[in-house]
Amino acid sequence: MKILVLGGDGFCGWPTALHLKNAGHDVTIVDNLDRREGKSQTKSLTNIASPAARTRQSAIGYLIADVTRKYEMNHILDEHSPDVVVHFAEQRSAPWSMLSSSSMLHTVQNNVMGTIAVLDAIRIKSPNTHLIHLGTMGVYGYNTTDDPIPEGYVESTIGGTHDPDTKITKGGTRLNIVYPPDPGSIYHMTKVMDHQMFQFYTKNWNLRITDLHQGIVWGTQTEDTKEHPELINRFDYDGEFGTVLNRFLVQAVTGGPLTVYGTGGQTRAFIHIQDTVHCVKAAVDSGDFELNRRPRIFNQVTETHNIKTLAEMISNRTGVKVDYQDNPRREKAENDLNVSTTLAEVGNFTPIRLMDNLGLLSEVQDVVRANIDNFDPMVVKSNASWHK
Amino acid sequence: MKILVLGGDGFCGWPTALHLKNAGHDVTIVDNLDRREGKSQTKSLTNIASPAARTRQSAIGYLIADVTRKYEMNHILDEHSPDVVVHFAEQRSAPWSMLSSSSMLHTVQNNVMGTIAVLDAIRIKSPNTHLIHLGTMGVYGYNTTDDPIPEGYVESTIGGTHDPDTKITKGGTRLNIVYPPDPGSIYHMTKVMDHQMFQFYTKNWNLRITDLHQGIVWGTQTEDTKEHPELINRFDYDGEFGTVLNRFLVQAVTGGPLTVYGTGGQTRAFIHIQDTVHCVKAAVDSGDFELNRRPRIFNQVTETHNIKTLAEMISNRTGVKVDYQDNPRREKAENDLNVSTTLAEVGNFTPIRLMDNLGLLSEVQDVVRANIDNFDPMVVKSNASWHK
Repeated sequence: MKILVLGGDGFCGWPTALHLKNAGHDVTIVDNLDRREGKSQTKSLTNIASPAARTRQSAIGYLIADVTRKYEMNHILDEHSPDVVVHFAEQRSAPWSMLSSSSMLHTVQNNVMGTIAVLDAIRIKSPNTHLIHLGTMGVYGYNTTDDPIPEGYVESTIGGTHDPDTKITKGGTRLNIVYPPDPGSIYHMTKVMDHQMFQFYTKNWNLRITDLHQGIVWGTQTEDTKEHPELINRFDYDGEFGTVLNRFLVQAVTGGPLTVYGTGGQTRAFIHIQDTVHCVKAAVDSGDFELNRRPRIFNQVTETHNIKTLAEMISNRTGVKVDYQDNPRREKAENDLNVSTTLAEVGNFTPIRLMDNLGLLSEVQDVVRANIDNFDPMVVKSNASWHK
Repeated sequence: MKILVLGGDGFCGWPTALHLKNAGHDVTIVDNLDRREGKSQTKSLTNIASPAARTRQSAIGYLIADVTRKYEMNHILDEHSPDVVVHFAEQRSAPWSMLSSSSMLHTVQNNVMGTIAVLDAIRIKSPNTHLIHLGTMGVYGYNTTDDPIPEGYVESTIGGTHDPDTKITKGGTRLNIVYPPDPGSIYHMTKVMDHQMFQFYTKNWNLRITDLHQGIVWGTQTEDTKEHPELINRFDYDGEFGTVLNRFLVQAVTGGPLTVYGTGGQTRAFIHIQDTVHCVKAAVDSGDFELNRRPRIFNQVTETHNIKTLAEMISNRTGVKVDYQDNPRREKAENDLNVSTTLAEVGNFTPIRLMDNLGLLSEVQDVVRANIDNFDPMVVKSNASWHK
């Protein structure tokens, strides 16, 4: 198949593009290189190769273009008529989105205007294209109901009269609704807004859209990125773009302590980067689903972990202490998280469970040690605050 | 109070600014004049006075500025520290938002980026300001439940097991949720996205926000705009910006026929322009509500009417025929509409009911006759299609 990977130069986009290429697809990356050179740039701990070098090693083409520019997207969709567009081209850090007024506005501008330009280019230039979008588990917030968080939709009784003792609701109207969103940052809010646009574009033009609500990604290399040094993936360890488990591993190598914001009682959904690419491939391979004027939604998650438990596990393995700091976020101090997910079944792969694959923690730490000259201790802590 | 009216040069904004001024407030208009000179310009049937002339007659100041420009909004909020910001500064036509790829993107850019810039300027420069936003009844779609559409929120049982015969739901979790949105155009979609931003800004920063979900406005003059010829309100009769009842009245004066799209079985929510200003004033006057980390929501509606009934009523009064055309919209051919609304009670005014105030129809027709030299028959029909 012909596949465009928007944001294919980034942490999730690059291994996904490689994996789809190695699976035999015709893959082209579209990226504005914002994370290398632009407003949201931060330095990767690993020395990632240039787009030209990546192209040389992988035979994946790069189009340096900005998805928020409507004419560029129209032209690209017209020229390529892709079977699939995988859309990673969004500002993807929750803390960075809360850093300043400027980063908030940039996140909304980039994510909302990028998604609408992509959607509308597909509508007018290539309406049979399957759009696969990377969303976030953060659209749901934490569990507000007793049941596991479903994959996007939930049967609900709107209205009626409810008896809290018997938990019986009389009357009302039974509807299958989008699970009530409760985003926790400007970043997460833009993903809810993206999804609202998918709802309208599917309802009105019956486009083929899959929205993947992804958990927190950990790990850095995949089978494909390990094949050559110039294929290495980026690795973010700074307070805004480094994901929590990866940051713990960097802190463990560099002498710690492990920074936990708040009590650590927060439970979060996780996925290893190798399973990210498995999941996106599963979404691509299952793209021939029946259209019903709604986006298809999957939770791209393999397991959930409590932050404190993760920190203590790494502390026990490495002897590095845990440092509990005031939580800059506005969130529940402690929460459970139960999530439905069917993507491993759809893709017929065995998910990588952290506790069964502790060797992958060592692998990440080996990558950190190999690139320790690039380490800057000043950038590890987050500067963002939800309370300002 | 010190009040900024964003979009205060427009059809609803101008009479609102005048009404608030005449109620003794210190009112300043902020407008980019897009409807006069910009991308969404159309000609008013009435000869509206220039901003300078309006200022001369009303002593209301104009700031020519664009709400989507963050620095302009920051500066204005910093300089004025208003008690209230009334936000009308959005592309407000559903058909225009569906006219072309360019109009779709402009609607999203203007409405979403304008609202976030306004919100964020309030957050950082004037966090005690009460933001009153003009939304639309179209965020709800039509009634999908048996109960009247509530004012924004509805008690619902998420999950559980439901017996359709007895209408009894066992189990699940009772939550007060935002009424599930079902927007019918790009324009309506942006209002849902606006509301998502209000939800996040109230949750995280506890701002004071009122969202008014307005019905279709009819009429043209208010008590305030009638006071002097240079205070006259704009009157839109074209297929995109003219609202349905006003267009019928223009068609009746100009020999018809009255254009009905589809069967006319659509029921819609209506409000007279005089009650629009009453409602916004009610929202201003009741601004000292208890903050609860959610936007306050009202349905700014006074009555509902079936389009066919309206057309036939005007046809019977004037002898002009009704012309049923293919519906360019994707919507239910026939629907009921039951709506909860409390704003007349909050504002302690008697709503203007169409059937009790048929003289107001004649008043609109007098305005049309007085400005008939400006009439262009080529612009009356809509060019937008939901099916392209």
